[in-house]
Amino acid sequence: MAKLVEYKDMAPRAKAVVEGIAAGRGIVPADINNLWKALARHPGVMEAFAAEMREAFAPGKLDPLTKELVYLAVSIANQCDYCTASHGTMARRKGMTDEMHEEFMRVVLAAIKGNKIATAYRVPVDPAFEEK
Amino acid sequence: MAKLVEYKDMAPRAKAVVEGIAAGRGIVPADINNLWKALARHPGVMEAFAAEMREAFAPGKLDPLTKELVYLAVSIANQCDYCTASHGTMARRKGMTDEMHEEFMRVVLAAIKGNKIATAYRVPVDPAFEEK
Amino acid sequence: MAKLVEYKDMAPRAKAVVEGIAAGRGIVPADINNLWKALARHPGVMEAFAAEMREAFAPGKLDPLTKELVYLAVSIANQCDYCTASHGTMARRKGMTDEMHEEFMRVVLAAIKGNKIATAYRVPVDPAFEEK
Amino acid sequence: MAKLVEYKDMAPRAKAVVEGIAAGRGIVPADINNLWKALARHPGVMEAFAAEMREAFAPGKLDPLTKELVYLAVSIANQCDYCTASHGTMARRKGMTDEMHEEFMRVVLAAIKGNKIATAYRVPVDPAFEEK
Amino acid sequence: MAKLVEYKDMAPRAKAVVEGIAAGRGIVPADINNLWKALARHPGVMEAFAAEMREAFAPGKLDPLTKELVYLAVSIANQCDYCTASHGTMARRKGMTDEMHEEFMRVVLAAIKGNKIATAYRVPVDPAFEEK
Amino acid sequence: MAKLVEYKDMAPRAKAVVEGIAAGRGIVPADINNLWKALARHPGVMEAFAAEMREAFAPGKLDPLTKELVYLAVSIANQCDYCTASHGTMARRKGMTDEMHEEFMRVVLAAIKGNKIATAYRVPVDPAFEEK
Repeated sequence: MAKLVEYKDMAPRAKAVVEGIAAGRGIVPADINNLWKALARHPGVMEAFAAEMREAFAPGKLDPLTKELVYLAVSIANQCDYCTASHGTMARRKGMTDEMHEEFMRVVLAAIKGNKIATAYRVPVDPAFEEK
Repeated sequence: MAKLVEYKDMAPRAKAVVEGIAAGRGIVPADINNLWKALARHPGVMEAFAAEMREAFAPGKLDPLTKELVYLAVSIANQCDYCTASHGTMARRKGMTDEMHEEFMRVVLAAIKGNKIATAYRVPVDPAFEEK
Repeated sequence: MAKLVEYKDMAPRAKAVVEGIAAGRGIVPADINNLWKALARHPGVMEAFAAEMREAFAPGKLDPLTKELVYLAVSIANQCDYCTASHGTMARRKGMTDEMHEEFMRVVLAAIKGNKIATAYRVPVDPAFEEK
Repeated sequence: MAKLVEYKDMAPRAKAVVEGIAAGRGIVPADINNLWKALARHPGVMEAFAAEMREAFAPGKLDPLTKELVYLAVSIANQCDYCTASHGTMARRKGMTDEMHEEFMRVVLAAIKGNKIATAYRVPVDPAFEEK
Repeated sequence: MAKLVEYKDMAPRAKAVVEGIAAGRGIVPADINNLWKALARHPGVMEAFAAEMREAFAPGKLDPLTKELVYLAVSIANQCDYCTASHGTMARRKGMTDEMHEEFMRVVLAAIKGNKIATAYRVPVDPAFEEK
Repeated sequence: MAKLVEYKDMAPRAKAVVEGIAAGRGIVPADINNLWKALARHPGVMEAFAAEMREAFAPGKLDPLTKELVYLAVSIANQCDYCTASHGTMARRKGMTDEMHEEFMRVVLAAIKGNKIATAYRVPVDPAFEEK
């Protein structure tokens, strides 16, 4: 497992990243989640990922819960245990009910099956689906 | 590539599946997409997948576009070319604008990066993310 | 796409590999499939893979069709189009009927769903499944 | 990790699923494995997956051990730890010996190598492997 | 397939990205590769990816060929055909000989086998490999 | 988890493999890592993988650290926790500094993003990237 660095023990570059994330979420920096404690010793990757996440979740045309569901869907497809646990929790905090979770999982599992069917039966793309 | 069977040449079991899908989409059976033409010779898999898709996309708590985005996210993560092309088209038909697509892609790409960072740095799951 | 080298144009090391495979299958070397034509310019990888395939498919406790189905299952899970096409053909030559193919696909698709369910719901391994 | 629900504490829908599986395996419901204890709070997904597994493993043209090996091959390719542990155990219960396991693994590993070789060297599909 | 936009037809934001890449490679913007022609209609993703690539390949402690080999290894593991073709070409331009390519492929294939062995046999991480 | 067999308890075939690896690394056989302790009961797979690793890491045109980075890149892409931990440690022993690790991770993450962009936007391969 990664060696986790607590906020109080981080170098200034890492502290700055954590403070930015904490401010955005309305939490105190000491309550930052493990991913950032693990990245604290890798400041270049940490800063770049924090910036990418901030842009991805910036207010826009898709609502915050939809974005969490998209993130969670990718994480399940990629079988990332940490991401499934963390973004599952975040999706619930942003309003995902048990009923919505079940619908979400039905679509995820149907998609995974569709992906493998298209591959296994070697289906050619319809002309109607090509970009114009 | 799969051998595609046109609707008019399908056996009755396959025709019935296509008719159900066509009715749900408001198209004529002859305009069904290639996935179903490829599955026409595999009726057991075809019927099971059609039923699973119908249930996954049945009206519920998540709106139809959100479901398409979840399906598309999984398909991109799994690198399924057919599914990316077909459900990308369907997402547009259900209202996805260029601006929404760009936001969606930002989240998908951030998720894929987050997945690999969690793995590469071997981040342990926070107690706060465990199920209660 | 790879540049394919026909048997008659291969260097001696590649020719020797192809002759061994052709003898095992009862075909003439000129009828070797594209994978080996593509590997002809990479003799170290070619020899090592030919040896590994020969050992994997050597007569043993599992019958030849079962081995083909295991190979095909992995290829579908990994979404390898070439391998799905080639080993699908080989499975048919070794006795896979349409009915067996449909049963096989049902198991492959159930397995893929089971894999994602175990991940998405974060199921811990039962003590009864641990090695003794 | 998932919160596991013991059989005696499950809601009626989940109990019914577990009873069906237990009857099929000749065990008591209390001995059901963790996957179903984790799904007990997600009855829609649970019922659908139980039905899909029952159909996939229904008696047919492929023998039960071959089906287990296909399931296990997919699980290894997908790197699902739970499924590798559980279906490895089930394959042994259905007759897989150490010798068969070693042969099986040789085919799985050869397949994975073949998949990556076909991709890395970008091998085009032979006309002989196309569906007629 | 993506609709490709030629340099002369790109909007100003996309043109600026292409000009930066072309300057770095010593080519004329019209000779930019397809990935950027496809991204031209998605300027947010295009700018972010161009910036990430520039930073990843900036001069540093690892030499340019090593970086190309790392990129190519990931692309083969992920079975990305476009990336395997493009970065295979770039690795050759940066000095990869046939002999180096064969050594590289031997390591890639050994790694993929090692990955699946570790998973299939469920090997626990040695204390000596944990971060201090 | 796998049942681990200590060197002193291994059968002769497994002992011989471990002795060969230990000699190559300059360690005593008792200090062999868990992967080999887990494979000790599967001598055919063990011998074949040991031989493949020895060939892959034999002295050649690529230096030992480059090979470790290629191995590590594949392991991260494939999300193999054991391999990421073990070959991360080995890369450090062969000279990977924190600075090199950060550069390496930037390339790995850029590659993964590039792979998904090429797929998601369905980019066709440039003629210039095709093999001659």
